[in-house]
Amino acid sequence: MMKRVAILGATGLVGQRFIQLLYKHPWFEIAVLQSSGKSAGKTYGESVKWVIDTDIPVEISQLPVEPLNAESIVKEGIDIVFSALPSEIATDVEKELARRGLIVISNASPMRMEPDIPLINPEVNADHIEVLEIQRKKRGWSGAIVKVPNCTTSIFTLSLKPLYDDFGVKRVVVSSMQAISGAGLTGLPSMFIMDNLIPYIEGEEEKVEEESTKIFGSLGSDGILHNNNLLVSASCHRVMVLEGHTIAVFAELEKKNAAIEDIVRAMEEFKGNKIKGLNLPTQPEKPIIVRRELDRPQPRLDRYEGRGMSVVVGRIRHDKVFNGVKYIVLGSNTIRGAAGNGVLIAELLVRKGLV
Amino acid sequence: MMKRVAILGATGLVGQRFIQLLYKHPWFEIAVLQSSGKSAGKTYGESVKWVIDTDIPVEISQLPVEPLNAESIVKEGIDIVFSALPSEIATDVEKELARRGLIVISNASPMRMEPDIPLINPEVNADHIEVLEIQRKKRGWSGAIVKVPNCTTSIFTLSLKPLYDDFGVKRVVVSSMQAISGAGLTGLPSMFIMDNLIPYIEGEEEKVEEESTKIFGSLGSDGILHNNNLLVSASCHRVMVLEGHTIAVFAELEKKNAAIEDIVRAMEEFKGNKIKGLNLPTQPEKPIIVRRELDRPQPRLDRYEGRGMSVVVGRIRHDKVFNGVKYIVLGSNTIRGAAGNGVLIAELLVRKGLV
Amino acid sequence: MMKRVAILGATGLVGQRFIQLLYKHPWFEIAVLQSSGKSAGKTYGESVKWVIDTDIPVEISQLPVEPLNAESIVKEGIDIVFSALPSEIATDVEKELARRGLIVISNASPMRMEPDIPLINPEVNADHIEVLEIQRKKRGWSGAIVKVPNCTTSIFTLSLKPLYDDFGVKRVVVSSMQAISGAGLTGLPSMFIMDNLIPYIEGEEEKVEEESTKIFGSLGSDGILHNNNLLVSASCHRVMVLEGHTIAVFAELEKKNAAIEDIVRAMEEFKGNKIKGLNLPTQPEKPIIVRRELDRPQPRLDRYEGRGMSVVVGRIRHDKVFNGVKYIVLGSNTIRGAAGNGVLIAELLVRKGLV
Amino acid sequence: MMKRVAILGATGLVGQRFIQLLYKHPWFEIAVLQSSGKSAGKTYGESVKWVIDTDIPVEISQLPVEPLNAESIVKEGIDIVFSALPSEIATDVEKELARRGLIVISNASPMRMEPDIPLINPEVNADHIEVLEIQRKKRGWSGAIVKVPNCTTSIFTLSLKPLYDDFGVKRVVVSSMQAISGAGLTGLPSMFIMDNLIPYIEGEEEKVEEESTKIFGSLGSDGILHNNNLLVSASCHRVMVLEGHTIAVFAELEKKNAAIEDIVRAMEEFKGNKIKGLNLPTQPEKPIIVRRELDRPQPRLDRYEGRGMSVVVGRIRHDKVFNGVKYIVLGSNTIRGAAGNGVLIAELLVRKGLV
Repeated sequence: MMKRVAILGATGLVGQRFIQLLYKHPWFEIAVLQSSGKSAGKTYGESVKWVIDTDIPVEISQLPVEPLNAESIVKEGIDIVFSALPSEIATDVEKELARRGLIVISNASPMRMEPDIPLINPEVNADHIEVLEIQRKKRGWSGAIVKVPNCTTSIFTLSLKPLYDDFGVKRVVVSSMQAISGAGLTGLPSMFIMDNLIPYIEGEEEKVEEESTKIFGSLGSDGILHNNNLLVSASCHRVMVLEGHTIAVFAELEKKNAAIEDIVRAMEEFKGNKIKGLNLPTQPEKPIIVRRELDRPQPRLDRYEGRGMSVVVGRIRHDKVFNGVKYIVLGSNTIRGAAGNGVLIAELLVRKGLV
Repeated sequence: MMKRVAILGATGLVGQRFIQLLYKHPWFEIAVLQSSGKSAGKTYGESVKWVIDTDIPVEISQLPVEPLNAESIVKEGIDIVFSALPSEIATDVEKELARRGLIVISNASPMRMEPDIPLINPEVNADHIEVLEIQRKKRGWSGAIVKVPNCTTSIFTLSLKPLYDDFGVKRVVVSSMQAISGAGLTGLPSMFIMDNLIPYIEGEEEKVEEESTKIFGSLGSDGILHNNNLLVSASCHRVMVLEGHTIAVFAELEKKNAAIEDIVRAMEEFKGNKIKGLNLPTQPEKPIIVRRELDRPQPRLDRYEGRGMSVVVGRIRHDKVFNGVKYIVLGSNTIRGAAGNGVLIAELLVRKGLV
Repeated sequence: MMKRVAILGATGLVGQRFIQLLYKHPWFEIAVLQSSGKSAGKTYGESVKWVIDTDIPVEISQLPVEPLNAESIVKEGIDIVFSALPSEIATDVEKELARRGLIVISNASPMRMEPDIPLINPEVNADHIEVLEIQRKKRGWSGAIVKVPNCTTSIFTLSLKPLYDDFGVKRVVVSSMQAISGAGLTGLPSMFIMDNLIPYIEGEEEKVEEESTKIFGSLGSDGILHNNNLLVSASCHRVMVLEGHTIAVFAELEKKNAAIEDIVRAMEEFKGNKIKGLNLPTQPEKPIIVRRELDRPQPRLDRYEGRGMSVVVGRIRHDKVFNGVKYIVLGSNTIRGAAGNGVLIAELLVRKGLV
Repeated sequence: MMKRVAILGATGLVGQRFIQLLYKHPWFEIAVLQSSGKSAGKTYGESVKWVIDTDIPVEISQLPVEPLNAESIVKEGIDIVFSALPSEIATDVEKELARRGLIVISNASPMRMEPDIPLINPEVNADHIEVLEIQRKKRGWSGAIVKVPNCTTSIFTLSLKPLYDDFGVKRVVVSSMQAISGAGLTGLPSMFIMDNLIPYIEGEEEKVEEESTKIFGSLGSDGILHNNNLLVSASCHRVMVLEGHTIAVFAELEKKNAAIEDIVRAMEEFKGNKIKGLNLPTQPEKPIIVRRELDRPQPRLDRYEGRGMSVVVGRIRHDKVFNGVKYIVLGSNTIRGAAGNGVLIAELLVRKGLV
């Protein structure tokens, strides 16, 4: 039985990725598109400025784009709502939908830090989904809200998971080089980035630092408890790359003197333990791909590994400052870091019988 | 009295910057151009692929480009030789010139780690020039070799100096985003960097890590001693920016709980103490410019501050991992990080009466 | 006696260029800045997103930005108004100012085709300024409106002028590669142009085709008459270049079998005849610079020739299709093609005693 | 029965495309890789600097790369040789192979203009293949050489074919914006093209002008006769796009006053008449795709239409200068303009029983 899904913010960049990933999805059927902008009343094909290099599917192109509207979603018998709404308006819309019984999987950043809102990077903390019980009790919702982490956080924490499990991680320095697609379809004027980089992304460093400790946290009686043994410091930068966030990671491990080859092996053999064996359609066979060439990963060459759901790690080497390890990790920010992660969460919920 | 100078590797990118900086220099006169390549026999204008946006000076354009040749340099009565030769051939040429009495200021990386070869970032360690006495005694040279540090090292150590002096620095993590001009005129094919970044630059991380501890080292009886109290870990990356290396720095300070405003002040008030008051022509009035905007420094906007000799620092903020400080520093890699630094060293030598 | 000037649309990209060119101008003093946007009430420094690589002059940075407001301009005793307003709002504002006695030099495209509105590329048709008499009579204005041509038109027609004068020009095909700065400060999202080009610029081809025939037109009793002997066909494209429009021109000449060297000479010797000898401060010494290298002009290397006021022509060669000539011309779109042209027009008006 | 093929110049950019297109090809099997460079003795995986975003097939990666060597090709029982050799060495190698009985399909430009060497853009002039009889007789070869046209020529002439057939074409102006991949893997240093364009590509304009008249020529008794009724004038430019040549075309038609909708229809309905119905594996279903949006085609979005074998045409509109038509055409330069065209020619030869 196909689940009927709605996409909010369907004409934006993450919305476009949702359409690309959900079209012909074996479990989901795109039934409703809504947008907060001026698109209402037009078809999707007329209103979207499509920038993905595979064409818009013809059926989707002909769907109407509705204005934001919970009523219509309820009436249409939607099972799951994917929200790629702007932060300013997301919260009200998402809460109303949850109140009215809908499962909302949201890419918007507000509410990510609330303890009863699960923030899920499936291979890392799929079990945090259990907090939904607390959420429903506390808020009296028949639906629920699940948040997708920030793009850089998703890519970074996925790469860190096997180190965390096998060697312990205490402190991590993270320096990102983020693609322009992370700023959305029209968020970054070309005059600002051409022959340039911007060493600042509003709110990003805080997101990486705080979301990471929530993702590596544990379930308490009141919600998710942050992991206080993990310290993350981030510096985030925008560079002239279309797609794919590249992150330099410097980590202090609890297990001192871990051999580099053991770290490589831990990453390569990582099966995404929290969802291992679930065979979700969007689940990458290898969540982490390790490249041994000296100069990889590179965004243009490696960003779509595992259909954009794998992260690619390279240059795993000894770090002097922490007597630890440093490495480079790359992932697709709009797939692994946004829409793909949302779809994977939806599949997890279906498999767990929560939808 | 003008000093007569020669430029080796004159047609390369650093060579072009040397010409731009030395033309109409108040103390120096360009007398000889030499090249290791196929340019010999042609004029400079015929052989160079000039990529700087100010035109080649007409007189320089008409100078002959000689093949590498110590004889001619001696015969021409040259006072200072600026070497921007490729690493593979630099050492032999430079040693012969030093042996024959010439002062060689070299941008080539070999020999930078030899204890009796001064590695000078003038504002940081101009006093290391005293090691030349040891060098001459040990090697029996009437001339001398002085090395210009690696581009990233130069920019990074200049920004670190006031922190080092006022707060003490123990450990530093450095993550660079380096311009394509750092790879030389033809070193980086466009197919490799377009819509991409390359998270590896051969030998760069070792250079940053080891040259920094030499620059912050001290003069011993046998040469420069590395500073063993300073630990640096670097990750170096090439990005699609024409000129200007941007570096994210995370530093652990000895003085805990230093206030951010004190750090800002230390940087702003830094006068380049080792050459303070020398009034060298290429010396920037403010070696470090601090920007308070959230999103600066940016390479396209800030790279030529202080005629390319200042570094620009921004986003000075608290760092969680070290309970220290993190910031961004930007500098012109071909000026502050290469030719400009070389010219500044030459001026220092003149002022000290060493030329 | 300094003339007091106002800049409308001061925070946009052309507005920024106006400030760069008018600051410390020998004849003009920036007295009022106005903006149609949200800047009102702030200082210029607070409200502008400055993207030019020379810093904002400190005095200008502290000027207030007023909302659009003719009253204030009149009260301040402004002599000349430079308008870089968006097309949608320019016409009403500019007409009101002209009615109230102000000389308005406008970069906005509306009204460019009205016969009594001079469209001036000074070296080409400075004499069209005489149409102001008709304008004033017809419209009852004590002030006046003068229009700056479209950026591509300005660069193209300047290069065509010596061919037109010396050889006659019948038909011209124009294919442009236009810089992103032509779309304004925030007009072109980076996601649209990265690793891409856009073969369409709204209204641009019509502007090039029609404005050119007006610029090469003549003064009739009712206004400017288009030149009906000149036919222009344009194809306009946006490419990933920061600044500098490059145009491929294919021209059919009346004088058949003109020697290439004669055409080169005509361009090189062109003195900007319509303003020759006027010694206007912004007037380039050589309006057209001819490069003989096979691969020039190039935007990054040549765009600021003559302080951005010269155009650079190269690759002058025989054209098979017209048995005519083809060449490449490059110019700074925001200087020669916009603000610089506006300032040059203002200087012309002052010299002619019209201000 | 699979044909065994060799690829010469296998590590270059066109060589990489050949591998991508020939791997798992239904008719061809990659048996031998040769290179003129330093790769000899290594495996393909070790020697290639792979820049295509699909991974190297593992089997291919393990193949040895041989030095250029006709003997080995003969011994290995190769049926078809694809040559992507550098111009300087291609001719001798290709002639020797043809002499020794091999069918050589060559992307190298030398010999393209020789009358007995077919220059094939299959949908346009597949019938020119008949000149091979003359070639063999004249040269005494048991093998043969067939040339792939220049990349820009291939894309341009394919788009022109339906106009030529249905409306007659007399004169055409062509202005190209060519991708950096057209310069080969390492041909264009990033320092030359960053924030820039280069309005010159050596030999390119002559190739477009002369190859086009050969492709639209006819078979005479001595070889292919150029079409003297067609005049082409080209201006060729390199822009900062990874892949995909975009061409502005201005055409004078014999049939005056052709309606734009008729021209659109002719292009859309074009079936590639010279190979219509042959069902070759690499043959695109629609050789020409017409887009109706105002701002298409765009390289990043449209370059891989028809698996890179279709060209995409847009902005078909009236042209003033010729009272004709102008339009934009885009195609993948390394597929449609190089390797893909070569494979399509090979398939044609197989279907015709010539291999």
